[in-house]
Amino acid sequence: MTRVLTGIQSSGKPHLGNILGAIIPAIKMSNNEDNESLFFIADLHSLTTLRDSSLIKENVYATAAAWLAFGFDTKKNIFYKQSDIPEVCEFTWYLNCFTPYPMLANAHSFKDKSDNLSNINTGLFTYPVLMASDILMYDANIVPVGKDQKQHVEMTRDIAGYVNNKYGEILIIPESKIDSRVMTIPGLDGKKMSKSYDNCIDIFLPEKDLKKQIMKIVTESLSLEEKKNPDKCNVFKIYKLIASKEKTEKLYNLYVNGNFGFGTAKKMLLDLILDTFSENREKYNYLMSNKNIIDKELEVGSDKARKIAKEVLSRFKKSLGF
Amino acid sequence: MTRVLTGIQSSGKPHLGNILGAIIPAIKMSNNEDNESLFFIADLHSLTTLRDSSLIKENVYATAAAWLAFGFDTKKNIFYKQSDIPEVCEFTWYLNCFTPYPMLANAHSFKDKSDNLSNINTGLFTYPVLMASDILMYDANIVPVGKDQKQHVEMTRDIAGYVNNKYGEILIIPESKIDSRVMTIPGLDGKKMSKSYDNCIDIFLPEKDLKKQIMKIVTESLSLEEKKNPDKCNVFKIYKLIASKEKTEKLYNLYVNGNFGFGTAKKMLLDLILDTFSENREKYNYLMSNKNIIDKELEVGSDKARKIAKEVLSRFKKSLGF
Repeated sequence: MTRVLTGIQSSGKPHLGNILGAIIPAIKMSNNEDNESLFFIADLHSLTTLRDSSLIKENVYATAAAWLAFGFDTKKNIFYKQSDIPEVCEFTWYLNCFTPYPMLANAHSFKDKSDNLSNINTGLFTYPVLMASDILMYDANIVPVGKDQKQHVEMTRDIAGYVNNKYGEILIIPESKIDSRVMTIPGLDGKKMSKSYDNCIDIFLPEKDLKKQIMKIVTESLSLEEKKNPDKCNVFKIYKLIASKEKTEKLYNLYVNGNFGFGTAKKMLLDLILDTFSENREKYNYLMSNKNIIDKELEVGSDKARKIAKEVLSRFKKSLGF
Repeated sequence: MTRVLTGIQSSGKPHLGNILGAIIPAIKMSNNEDNESLFFIADLHSLTTLRDSSLIKENVYATAAAWLAFGFDTKKNIFYKQSDIPEVCEFTWYLNCFTPYPMLANAHSFKDKSDNLSNINTGLFTYPVLMASDILMYDANIVPVGKDQKQHVEMTRDIAGYVNNKYGEILIIPESKIDSRVMTIPGLDGKKMSKSYDNCIDIFLPEKDLKKQIMKIVTESLSLEEKKNPDKCNVFKIYKLIASKEKTEKLYNLYVNGNFGFGTAKKMLLDLILDTFSENREKYNYLMSNKNIIDKELEVGSDKARKIAKEVLSRFKKSLGF
């Protein structure tokens, strides 16, 4: 059975872009019966950029709640929090000793930041080794990643290769799988929806606040009467990613016929979101008000993950003379 | 009560230089009733330079056996193996995120090696953070170090300062204590006794092999009759570090009176070593033939050390939101 490992960033509350572009497709893939899947919330990684302790904690809950609210099957899959497996840090130290310094110094992710070295902490610099540890610790076969992470999986393969070359085939060499289906979801201003652009739709907000957010979507300055081009409209672009074919066609026709205002379109988008995600919104808010349920889910997952981690680490340390 | 922390390198079987220059003085200091002392064998660190698994294992046993053979009090002190406390690696990850990259890149120990970057692994580069973790993990007040390690304690203080500055006084800021009494012990060729110069006396060898080693001590080419200068003689220099004042004076006179050969001096040194260290030799060899006793000692120490480590780590993680 193929073991698939997926790291989930916990740098903030998931927005519509994360949900449509990552969470829903990943959950669909995770239901494949041929795979044994591990999903972890990368909270140790979040410490390389975040310092606010209550935010770190809240982000983990919000991330977990969003995945659970979209029906992630924690029985079939192993769902855990990175920091609950301290073995991953222990393994990281050992792997550090097999990672050539220049490999990290030449990594794209480091070079991109090296204009301003004084702002880089050692966690950011050595993060690829933590990622290697995350992967190799569970004998993962496949690691689905975005293009920007492909090099890190290559580094993981190299590190595992150095170890195996010295001590025999004790680590599984993983393969990356670039997910070409990843969608870029437009934000309020038409640019890619991203926290760093402050252009996100947060579908878990109370209706009133969600409405405010959607009303901010940037549209052309056209009179009510004028015919409108749906393909140039940010409201329509988001709408069609969620709506059925029929609904999308209906809205398309309203645009091109004229006598239809963007305010109405926005209202239709709001209704669509409220309607489509009503169960998810309810479940998310329920979980966020009952965090002990999230704790319990992650605890069960950690127990399962830790069992694998301990086995791999013990096999590894034995070979190294520890 | 002042808590003193000492790391013990486990890069090889301790030689006479280690014993006279480090082990005996440290054991003397560790008997001070005002101190609570932690001593650990730095085997995680040894992986930055060693790859041979049986050597790594054997070095730990040899190091522990030497300390125990010289009467190290494991009841008063806490004696443990670094790798038995996986919390230190966990703590290292967190501290990595508070360690500016340039701090490590500018460390003497890294700069000294940076002529040949391709030979440097990430363990060597980030070692000062592991050392910070070793120290801060136990709320150590005092860290006795050689001059070459002073900068690493400074870095530890800086890292702890960054953490405390953000989260309050959760870490104890340690102080280094330069041990000025550290003796440099001459080796077989008169240079500092060091494994890297291959000029060591291994007092734990069987008598026959020890004799062979001592006979290799480099001396001047002088006839038997000629008067000899003891202060220029490597045999005498080693002899006087071990012998009583009376014995030293006696040998001194033999040198300056002439009609006394270096072969006899070497034989006297051999006898002195066998006599002085007979109990230690016996105990060392007994322990090395009964490694389960060493295991047991280190196990007891690890239990004590781990209890402190868990407390500090839990206090630390709580403050960070983990």
